[in-house]
Amino acid sequence: MLKKDDITAHNNFENIRVALEQQDVEKVLQITQHIKPADIAMLSHHMTPQQQIEFFSVLPNAAYVFEHLDLVEQVRLALQFQADDLVALISNMHSDKRIDVFKALPLQLQNYIFSQLDADKKAQIQALIVYREESAGSIMSSDYVTLSAQLTMQEAIVQLRRVAADRETLYLIYITNQAHQLQGVISLRQIIQSPPEQLIKEVMTTDLVVGLVDEDQESIATKLSHYDFIALPIVDHEQHLVGIVTYDDAMDIFQEEFTEDILKGSAVESTTKLSLKTAPIFTLYRQRVFWLVILVFGSLLSGIGISHFEETIAANLVLVFFLPLLVGSGGNAGSQSSTLMVRAIATGDVHIKDWFSLLGRESLVALCLGATMAFAVSILGYIRGDHMVALVLAISMMGIVLVGCLIGMSLPFILNKLGLDPASASAPLVTSICDATGVIIYLFIASQLLVNIV
Amino acid sequence: MLKKDDITAHNNFENIRVALEQQDVEKVLQITQHIKPADIAMLSHHMTPQQQIEFFSVLPNAAYVFEHLDLVEQVRLALQFQADDLVALISNMHSDKRIDVFKALPLQLQNYIFSQLDADKKAQIQALIVYREESAGSIMSSDYVTLSAQLTMQEAIVQLRRVAADRETLYLIYITNQAHQLQGVISLRQIIQSPPEQLIKEVMTTDLVVGLVDEDQESIATKLSHYDFIALPIVDHEQHLVGIVTYDDAMDIFQEEFTEDILKGSAVESTTKLSLKTAPIFTLYRQRVFWLVILVFGSLLSGIGISHFEETIAANLVLVFFLPLLVGSGGNAGSQSSTLMVRAIATGDVHIKDWFSLLGRESLVALCLGATMAFAVSILGYIRGDHMVALVLAISMMGIVLVGCLIGMSLPFILNKLGLDPASASAPLVTSICDATGVIIYLFIASQLLVNIV
Repeated sequence: MLKKDDITAHNNFENIRVALEQQDVEKVLQITQHIKPADIAMLSHHMTPQQQIEFFSVLPNAAYVFEHLDLVEQVRLALQFQADDLVALISNMHSDKRIDVFKALPLQLQNYIFSQLDADKKAQIQALIVYREESAGSIMSSDYVTLSAQLTMQEAIVQLRRVAADRETLYLIYITNQAHQLQGVISLRQIIQSPPEQLIKEVMTTDLVVGLVDEDQESIATKLSHYDFIALPIVDHEQHLVGIVTYDDAMDIFQEEFTEDILKGSAVESTTKLSLKTAPIFTLYRQRVFWLVILVFGSLLSGIGISHFEETIAANLVLVFFLPLLVGSGGNAGSQSSTLMVRAIATGDVHIKDWFSLLGRESLVALCLGATMAFAVSILGYIRGDHMVALVLAISMMGIVLVGCLIGMSLPFILNKLGLDPASASAPLVTSICDATGVIIYLFIASQLLVNIV
Repeated sequence: MLKKDDITAHNNFENIRVALEQQDVEKVLQITQHIKPADIAMLSHHMTPQQQIEFFSVLPNAAYVFEHLDLVEQVRLALQFQADDLVALISNMHSDKRIDVFKALPLQLQNYIFSQLDADKKAQIQALIVYREESAGSIMSSDYVTLSAQLTMQEAIVQLRRVAADRETLYLIYITNQAHQLQGVISLRQIIQSPPEQLIKEVMTTDLVVGLVDEDQESIATKLSHYDFIALPIVDHEQHLVGIVTYDDAMDIFQEEFTEDILKGSAVESTTKLSLKTAPIFTLYRQRVFWLVILVFGSLLSGIGISHFEETIAANLVLVFFLPLLVGSGGNAGSQSSTLMVRAIATGDVHIKDWFSLLGRESLVALCLGATMAFAVSILGYIRGDHMVALVLAISMMGIVLVGCLIGMSLPFILNKLGLDPASASAPLVTSICDATGVIIYLFIASQLLVNIV
């Protein structure tokens, strides 16, 4: 199936390329009219910058195709379009997508575009531009439909017939009073399935779930997903309806937030919407160097631990052979624990107040894991050393895995108590801390049990 | 805002609890009628098992509330309900949620429930039960609406008025021929906005995007999100319409798949829908022990490396002090690289064929990171040792970070070539491999530069 799609995409691309070369606009329109905007956007990725500009200038639904490109690409193209083409394109975009690209353009271009837009769209931009990044206000769209509660279902349908095609959804219709405060919501489904003469106000839902305009985008997406809504109305603090966020935005937000969490889990500073293929080298350097340097201090603790036990090591060089194994196992077990815990907090399975009750469960799991690992490593110790080395390894492994797991599971909670994001308990951070404690546990036990004998 | 919600939730819960105790069914209905099913489900979490059973037996929309519980909870409750209550509940669920809980029940109970359902629902269960886990067939719903292409818009609206309220969506309506093969799709929006006398077949979209019944659920969710569809029709290999998957299912799938990826990234076997609070200790043990034991072999390589250079170490014990720092930095840089790469592959930013071209960029970033780290560590080396130690540390650090990054970025591609999931390039796996190469690089350089002098 995928194979067939790929071939079709390739053929379409070739045909468009040839048609553009021959300046055969008719042909381009004919090829693209049966392709969805999201797919046309993907085709345009393979074009040269010059082809892209020609292509977008002939596309009838250019604005909807343009919306499916990522922001970096949109800005790159916008800077190359003819000024008037750009104004037309931006004017035809949905209001939430329009404000995103508008904000990313150079100030001078912003001023020119703004001066060319009609009054409605000027007002929309002015209303949307004030909201801070990642707030509901910054992602919401103004393209919703409102009706009066006094209409009958039949009248509502007549009104809906007249609504322009650029509204993001007709399926949830918001009922506002004269001051534009949100009074209720009715679905197109309810309108269709109620008797034609019934009034909206008798059917509409008044138990409203809303988002606040300054609420975090992740909280908005979670509400949409929790209630399985197609759209969530966004209100200001006086209950004025100011926008909607739709289910497809929620999916994009989830993708963005997940990427952020995953990168944090690997001690990489997350900058949203960064492409590994095109981001400047220095940006890639900067998002990684901070944590690498911080983690050096963790490793230094291990070094100090080792140097403290230099005599023990000098007398028993076999200990060094097992050092990476023991210390590494603690770090691995610890980073498993922290990831499980961070994830459980993120999905709402576990809450901060559960920490104490989870401690017992985690200790049990850690003891089982430690016992398994201790058994394995003591065999290796006996082969390479003697029964005393095997004993030292077994006891150390139990201790290291237990302590590692408890550190790993506790760190996300501690970070949260300090007002930090639990997801900052990255695998490298947990590993560094577990390594240092592992070195001390191992060499302390060895110095107690071995040196006296040697 | 959240505070207020919490207090409301707590009050509602207390009022329901009291009403249940006084057996005041009217009161329970009165409290719950203004709460959304998803929230009623959350309230029920705080009840005792006995309260839950009473509660669900009086709720009018019990099936929709029940659908919002997770599967483990659903099964636990199902086993405690009166048999007839359970049949009624399961009978009223949406077909996709119904099949999930049905499959999870003991065989004897399955047989009893099946015998009590009406013919329609029996047929739905028989149709849905055959599909393998994580396929489109296993998540799709049969609650879609079909119309004939010959109807006018007006006739379509009359038909839609009659459709039962249990259809998952009225917003996309599928057009099938007599053999139930999919011919087109029309949105309720198109129906509303077209002239009443126009025929469906003149307006419907025939360029269809469909999912195949045996297609992977992740691919289905990606299609929904790519096209921003409310629902995707699922067909068999002869184009018969067999179900739909809706946007809210896509969000759940994303959540599930992301959790799977994150856990893999920390070398934890992912078992879906596992609660840290309630899962058996042995299950938690089993999902972690496999990778911990595998990683022992990686650490053993480090140990072998160290023992090979025992003489160098014995002559320069200061080297051991810096061992965790150097080796750890390589592992940290490597796991950053692999996470960035795995994530970029997952989001489609990077493809397997891009590996070679990314190699150059990654090397540049790694050299910058290595230089920074080398500078820092050489100062420490000069303080603790002398200028030769500082030189050994600086050269080693450059080499270790460079090699670590290249291993980290390449491993996901290699795993993919071997037919494995790139996400298996977990932080612990990359760290173990980088540790072993780091030990060898460090001690080899030290043995070349230092031992001759001492």
